[in-house]
Amino acid sequence: MIQDRFWLRDPEREKELKKSGGGGGGTAMRIIVPLQGVVQGRGGLVLGSVIPCALFYFMQLYLKRNRSPPPSPSPSSNNESSNQLSELPSISRSQSRTHLASPRNSSGPVQISSRASSIAKSGDSPYYLGLKKVASDPYDASNNPNGVIQLGLAENKLSLDQVRGWIVKHVEVSLLDANLSISGIATYQPFDGLMNLKIAMGGFMSQVMQTSVSFSPSQIVLTAGATPAIEILTFCLADPGHAFLVPSPYYPGFDRDIKWRTGVELVPVPCRSTDNFSLSIPALDRAFNQAKKRGLKVRGVLVSNPSNPVGNLLNRETLCSLLDFVREKNIHLISDEIFAGSTHGSDEFVSIAEVLDSEDFDKSRVHIIYGLSKDLSLPGFRVGAIYSYNENVVAAATRLARFSSISAPTQHLLISMLSDTEFIRGLIRETRGRLRKMYSLFVDGLKQLGIKCAESNGGFYCWADMSKFIRSYSEKGELELWDKLLNVAKINVTPGSACHCIEPGWFRFCFTTLTESDIPVVMERIRKVSESG
Amino acid sequence: MIQDRFWLRDPEREKELKKSGGGGGGTAMRIIVPLQGVVQGRGGLVLGSVIPCALFYFMQLYLKRNRSPPPSPSPSSNNESSNQLSELPSISRSQSRTHLASPRNSSGPVQISSRASSIAKSGDSPYYLGLKKVASDPYDASNNPNGVIQLGLAENKLSLDQVRGWIVKHVEVSLLDANLSISGIATYQPFDGLMNLKIAMGGFMSQVMQTSVSFSPSQIVLTAGATPAIEILTFCLADPGHAFLVPSPYYPGFDRDIKWRTGVELVPVPCRSTDNFSLSIPALDRAFNQAKKRGLKVRGVLVSNPSNPVGNLLNRETLCSLLDFVREKNIHLISDEIFAGSTHGSDEFVSIAEVLDSEDFDKSRVHIIYGLSKDLSLPGFRVGAIYSYNENVVAAATRLARFSSISAPTQHLLISMLSDTEFIRGLIRETRGRLRKMYSLFVDGLKQLGIKCAESNGGFYCWADMSKFIRSYSEKGELELWDKLLNVAKINVTPGSACHCIEPGWFRFCFTTLTESDIPVVMERIRKVSESG
Repeated sequence: MIQDRFWLRDPEREKELKKSGGGGGGTAMRIIVPLQGVVQGRGGLVLGSVIPCALFYFMQLYLKRNRSPPPSPSPSSNNESSNQLSELPSISRSQSRTHLASPRNSSGPVQISSRASSIAKSGDSPYYLGLKKVASDPYDASNNPNGVIQLGLAENKLSLDQVRGWIVKHVEVSLLDANLSISGIATYQPFDGLMNLKIAMGGFMSQVMQTSVSFSPSQIVLTAGATPAIEILTFCLADPGHAFLVPSPYYPGFDRDIKWRTGVELVPVPCRSTDNFSLSIPALDRAFNQAKKRGLKVRGVLVSNPSNPVGNLLNRETLCSLLDFVREKNIHLISDEIFAGSTHGSDEFVSIAEVLDSEDFDKSRVHIIYGLSKDLSLPGFRVGAIYSYNENVVAAATRLARFSSISAPTQHLLISMLSDTEFIRGLIRETRGRLRKMYSLFVDGLKQLGIKCAESNGGFYCWADMSKFIRSYSEKGELELWDKLLNVAKINVTPGSACHCIEPGWFRFCFTTLTESDIPVVMERIRKVSESG
Repeated sequence: MIQDRFWLRDPEREKELKKSGGGGGGTAMRIIVPLQGVVQGRGGLVLGSVIPCALFYFMQLYLKRNRSPPPSPSPSSNNESSNQLSELPSISRSQSRTHLASPRNSSGPVQISSRASSIAKSGDSPYYLGLKKVASDPYDASNNPNGVIQLGLAENKLSLDQVRGWIVKHVEVSLLDANLSISGIATYQPFDGLMNLKIAMGGFMSQVMQTSVSFSPSQIVLTAGATPAIEILTFCLADPGHAFLVPSPYYPGFDRDIKWRTGVELVPVPCRSTDNFSLSIPALDRAFNQAKKRGLKVRGVLVSNPSNPVGNLLNRETLCSLLDFVREKNIHLISDEIFAGSTHGSDEFVSIAEVLDSEDFDKSRVHIIYGLSKDLSLPGFRVGAIYSYNENVVAAATRLARFSSISAPTQHLLISMLSDTEFIRGLIRETRGRLRKMYSLFVDGLKQLGIKCAESNGGFYCWADMSKFIRSYSEKGELELWDKLLNVAKINVTPGSACHCIEPGWFRFCFTTLTESDIPVVMERIRKVSESG
C-alpha cells in the first residue's frame, strides 16, 4: 500500500532514487544501476550483460563475507534511532531488561517520529536564542533597567493605546450584542472564518493598501495567524522535496513555517547591498536553473513586500517582471504583504493584487499572505489570511483551516473593530505617523554611531550595516558581534545570517517595540560595544 | 539533496520500494530485485550470477525495442497531472499558446500540490455531505419546520444558557481587568498557550474526570481545538507511511485529522455488536500482525474514551491490558478523552492518567487528547490540549503549536471561566443531569420504534441498530437508508460505514443538539421512513 501511494504520488522522488541507485537493492544496486546506465550508453547488448553478470558474482561473494548481523527484533530498529534525541537513554531493548526491575517497563524507550526529533532538536538559531534571552530577563525602564532590550521581535507597540481604547469601549457590545446569540460564539463555526470577518478583512486590506482593488471574501481563507497561513498555502502548492525560491535576506521564521512539516525546501536567492538588497530577476533565473540542476523541482517564488528585514518595496515594474517570470516557469507566486499598511517612507506600496487588476496576467498562480499582527498591532489575536486567485487552492486551504481556526469571540470582536472604518482610518494614519517618527529617530541614532541603514520604506525594522565592527568578515565574526550585543550590551537583534544574508555584518533592528525614551538607552548600549571593538 | 534526505530519513519507505523493485531502474529492476532475492535464498553464487546475466540480456533487448518517447520539456510534465483537479483545463502548454491571445497567458495551467488536489477532491463522505445539507437548510421549529434536523454534529447545546450567563456577567472583567494590560492581549504570547490557562486547564481536567490525579501544566500543549491537537501529536509520533491502530467504529473526522497532512495511515480494528463494540486486545494483536505483514509499521494505538460513536467506557482492566500491549509492541498509546466529563451512565469513567498514576507503567509512551468543545460546550472557542508524558513530544508539540495557537482574548476569558470553580462545578453537574435526561428520552423514543441502541455511558450519541430497516445487509443498503433519512425524513445522522463499522445498519444519532420538544419530531420522521420500508 505504501509503495502504491509512493509510485502514484511522487514520481520526482522516484527519479531521484533512481539516479542515486537508492531503493534498488542495497549496496549492490547502488553500484549496478549507474553502471548499467554507462553500459547502455555504449549500446552493447553483450557487454551490458556480461559486466553486470561478473559484478553480481563478486558482489554476492563480498556480501556473503561481510554479511551484517541480522537486525534486532525490536519493531523500532531502523536507522531512525540515529535520529533519536540525545536526551533519550540509548540502552537497547535486551539490555534494558536487565536494568529495570518491573516487567511492565521491560521494552526499550519508545521512539518519537524523526520529524519531531529534528524539530525538538532545532531552534538554537540566534534568532530564537535571542528571543529566549529576552523572555528570561526583559528590560523595563523602571523595574528592570539592566534587562535585555527587545529589538528582535516584529511587534508594533506604538499604537497599542489606540487599540486598547477601542476594545475597552466596545468589547462587551461586540461579543454580546442583541443580534448575536450565544450560539454564534460557543458552537461550531466555519473553520475558515466567519463570512462577516472575511468581508471586513477584505475591506481592511483595501483600506490599508490604499487601493481601489476590492478583495473578494470568497477568495479569503482565515487562519490562526499568518504563520499557519503560509504553511497551509505551502501544503497546497508544493509536495515534499519541491522548493520555493526566496530572495534573501528573508524573515528567519520561514525556515520553520515552511519547511518543518511540509517537506518543502527553500532556496535563498541572494540580493546585494550594492542594489539596496533589491530583487533581481536574473538572480531569480540563475537560482531557478541551479536548483533544477541539483534536481530540485521549484514550485514557486516567495517574496515579502514590504520586505522583511530590509523594508524596501517592490515597485510595479518589478512586480510585472515577477509575474512574467512565474508564468514563463509555470510556477506560483506568493506575495507576503503582511506589512502592507506599515509603510513610513515616500515610496508608494503596490500590492500584487493591484498589478493583477490592471493587467492581463494569469491570476491562478498568485497568492497573497496577510494578517492582523502587524498593521493592526494584534499578533496576540492570531489572525492570518490566505488570499488566493486559484479556486482549487482556496478549496483545499478552506478544508485545511480546520487545523488552525480563529476563536469565535475574537472573530466577533474583530468584525466590530474592522467595520468601524472611522476608527480604522484614524488608526492607520496615526500608526504611520508614529512609525515614520520612530524610524527617523532610530536611523539618526545609528547614524551618529557611524552605522548606516539600507533604504527602507516600510516595516518595523532598520537593516543596519555593522560590518565595520566585526573582527573577521565572516558569519563567525557577525555572530561574535551578535553575542556581544546580546550578552554584553543586552540588546536582542537579529543577525543577517539568520536571514540568510550572504554579506556578513548586517543586523535587523526592530524599533517598534520601543518608546522614544528607550532610543538613547539602546544607542548608548550599542556605542559601548562598538567602541570596545 | 532530495535523495540524501530520503536515505537518511525514511528507511521504511526504501524497504518498501525495494520489495516492489521501485526506484531501482525501471521495469528491469522491478523484476531483477525480487528474483535476486530468490536466487540468494538458495545460496547459489553461480546461479545468482547466471540468471541475472541472462535476464539483463533479454531485458535490455526488450527495453531497446520498447523505448518510451522522451518526456515533454514542460517543467510540470510528470504524472501529477493525473492528480490534477478535473476542473482545471487540461490543454497542454504548447496547445495553450495557440488558444490564448495574450503572450502573458501563454503557459499551461499551474499545478497545485498532489496532496492539495486530493484534499480538495475528497469530502464527499456521507458524514460531510450530511453536514452540508443541514447548513443549507437547517431546521428551526418556528421558522423552518421542514428543514433538516441536525443529529450528525457533536455539539452540546443543552447547557449553553449557563455558559452564556457566565460570559455576559464576566466578559468585560475577564478581558480588561486591572491586572491585565493591553499587552497581555494584543502582543505575542507563547504559541502553546498561556501558563495560567494551562494551570486552569489541568485543574478543569481533574475536576471533570473526577480524579485525584493532578495534571501538570508543564505537560500541556494548548492548540486551537482538539483537531490540531491530534494532528500535531501524530506529526510527533509517526512518520509518513507509519500507522496507528484504531478500534472501530471510530470518529469519522480522524480520517481527515490524522491522515491528510501527516502521511500516517489508520488501521481500523473491528469491534463487534456482540461485545457491545468493546475493545478486544486479541483483535488489536491480530490487526498489529496483519499490518506488519502488509509492510505497515504500526507506531501507536488510538482509543477514544468515552468512545465516539458508541459511548461505552474503557474500564481499568482494559486500560491496563492496553498499556501492557503498547509496552510489549514498543509503541505509543493515544487516549482521546474529550468526552471525559460528558458521562451520563452508571459506569465510572477512568482516565488513562489515573491508571498511570496508580501503577508502575512506562509513561513516556502515553498521550492524552483533550479539549473544551465537548465538556464545556465551547467548540466555537477552538481550544484543544495535548497532555503528554513524553518530554520530547512536549518539546516538539510546543514548537508546532505556532501553527495553531489560541487567540489571547479567548485565553483570558477562559482563564477566568475555568478558575471560577464554583461555576464549573455547577455546570458539570447540571450538564450531566441534562445529558442523562436527554439520553434516556432519546433511547426510549427509538425503542418505541423498535430500534435498539448499544449500551452507552458517555458522549453525545445513541449508537443505534437500524439493520432491520435496510433493504440489503450491506454498506449499500445502509447508505440507501441514510440517504432516505437525510433527504426524505430530513434528519442528518451518521451512517456506521463513515465510522468504519464493519456491521451494516448502525447509525450515530447525536441528541445534544436538540431540545426535548424536538424529540417527538425526530421520532415521527424516523417512523415514516422505517415504515415506508
